[in-house]
Amino acid sequence: MENKSIDKVNIHRFKEGKIQEVEDELAVELPLEIQLATHGQRPAKSISVTMRTPGNDDELAIGFLFTEAIISDNNNIESFSYPAQNQIRIILEEGTKIQLDQLERHFYTSSSCGVCSKSSIEAIYTNTKFDLPVEQKLISRDQIHGFLQHVDNEQSLFNRTGGIHAAALFDFDGNLIALREDVGRHNALDKLIGYAINNQMLPLHKYVLFLSGRASFELIQKARMAAIPIVVAVGAPSSLAVELASDSGQTLIGFLKKNSLNIYCGHERIRI
Amino acid sequence: MENKSIDKVNIHRFKEGKIQEVEDELAVELPLEIQLATHGQRPAKSISVTMRTPGNDDELAIGFLFTEAIISDNNNIESFSYPAQNQIRIILEEGTKIQLDQLERHFYTSSSCGVCSKSSIEAIYTNTKFDLPVEQKLISRDQIHGFLQHVDNEQSLFNRTGGIHAAALFDFDGNLIALREDVGRHNALDKLIGYAINNQMLPLHKYVLFLSGRASFELIQKARMAAIPIVVAVGAPSSLAVELASDSGQTLIGFLKKNSLNIYCGHERIRI
Repeated sequence: MENKSIDKVNIHRFKEGKIQEVEDELAVELPLEIQLATHGQRPAKSISVTMRTPGNDDELAIGFLFTEAIISDNNNIESFSYPAQNQIRIILEEGTKIQLDQLERHFYTSSSCGVCSKSSIEAIYTNTKFDLPVEQKLISRDQIHGFLQHVDNEQSLFNRTGGIHAAALFDFDGNLIALREDVGRHNALDKLIGYAINNQMLPLHKYVLFLSGRASFELIQKARMAAIPIVVAVGAPSSLAVELASDSGQTLIGFLKKNSLNIYCGHERIRI
Repeated sequence: MENKSIDKVNIHRFKEGKIQEVEDELAVELPLEIQLATHGQRPAKSISVTMRTPGNDDELAIGFLFTEAIISDNNNIESFSYPAQNQIRIILEEGTKIQLDQLERHFYTSSSCGVCSKSSIEAIYTNTKFDLPVEQKLISRDQIHGFLQHVDNEQSLFNRTGGIHAAALFDFDGNLIALREDVGRHNALDKLIGYAINNQMLPLHKYVLFLSGRASFELIQKARMAAIPIVVAVGAPSSLAVELASDSGQTLIGFLKKNSLNIYCGHERIRI
């Protein structure tokens, strides 16, 4: 996997007062076309072309289709295939219900009330299969600070290229369960949720999501689709990310550092 | 503009060993629906819904439509309107040619050779209106390092929220011409290119593009559409960003710091 996730190039580096020609490592970015077909109803339909880092393409496709509410789980997936380079085709069992109209409407607008933060949030509730957990399980702040060290050890592509996002799942004891990397932060999260779907882990009530960058609406939306109660980001959240997390009852933490953090909402899940 | 670009929330901040309730500022993220209509051919068609930071919505819409090759400039724009909150409608003069099929195909695939880096790059050349400049104008490395200070002074939203991307245009003497901020880095660049279109500055042969984050394929693609010869990013480039910049003859710099930088291609435009 690493071979196709990293590219080597010769560059001119200016450092400490001098210029040198050196070899450098880059995170690979390549298009992936996701196709969907139902058994007996071919040909396949092209659903999306996303720019991603190769590796775990099946997880990316499943996670994307689930978080966009096009499929509801992987129970009806009959088979995968790779018709060509950078293409993945998912064949669903005969009679499987899919919501292709989701793609046209996007998540951002609901037909009733136009384009606003309220409509963006309501559109998610309409499409969510899982509620958040009723029980308010706690995690300690120390364990959350500990995420940084765990991720640092595991972020092999970031450590080599400096140019890739990570999404990781932790349990409430602070153990790292899985980590995925990608040039696109939404892809990293789709891969992680695809991994969880493949391992029958949904809804993700017993897990905390770690994001290596900023927390946008899109990422909180995906976390909400998988019913993750706590999201911890190294970067800043946007206004709409906080609004969604707050409205849906999620805990959202940003600016995670070794000795500090901001809790934007849902502080009752954190043991200070 | 600042009022609607920044939101205030009450958060719990853990810092220096204690927890405090404080007021914090967030970058606003809200959907914008871009609609397009041709005079005499209404109703308007919804082209895209993008999550953006409010402010300079007209530039965002024009820049987006141009860099996606749906319109070729602003000569044929008859008027704008704002039919509702978070909606912008662009009315084109009667008879204006628009390429709506661009939206279906995306940029990433050309019909001839499937999905790969080569096809992604070729699709851009097919849609590019402008060549890069023939003359190889030089800029000094010192001036490029100086970008950081200029941007730091101007990035008002970043300085307050820590959660927003910037794209800026500099001339070859190192003067800051314009800077735009947005929660989405592609939006920040679309706004900047929209500004340039509104000011009849295209092709942008005499300018250098500064990006506050990583350089993805999408950003280099937009820079190439506007014929910008040099792109300087604070973060890492992806493999496909370097491939496109190199293939098209652009200069691409990454990991810009006060005393160091990496030149990925086109070093002959930089006076070391």
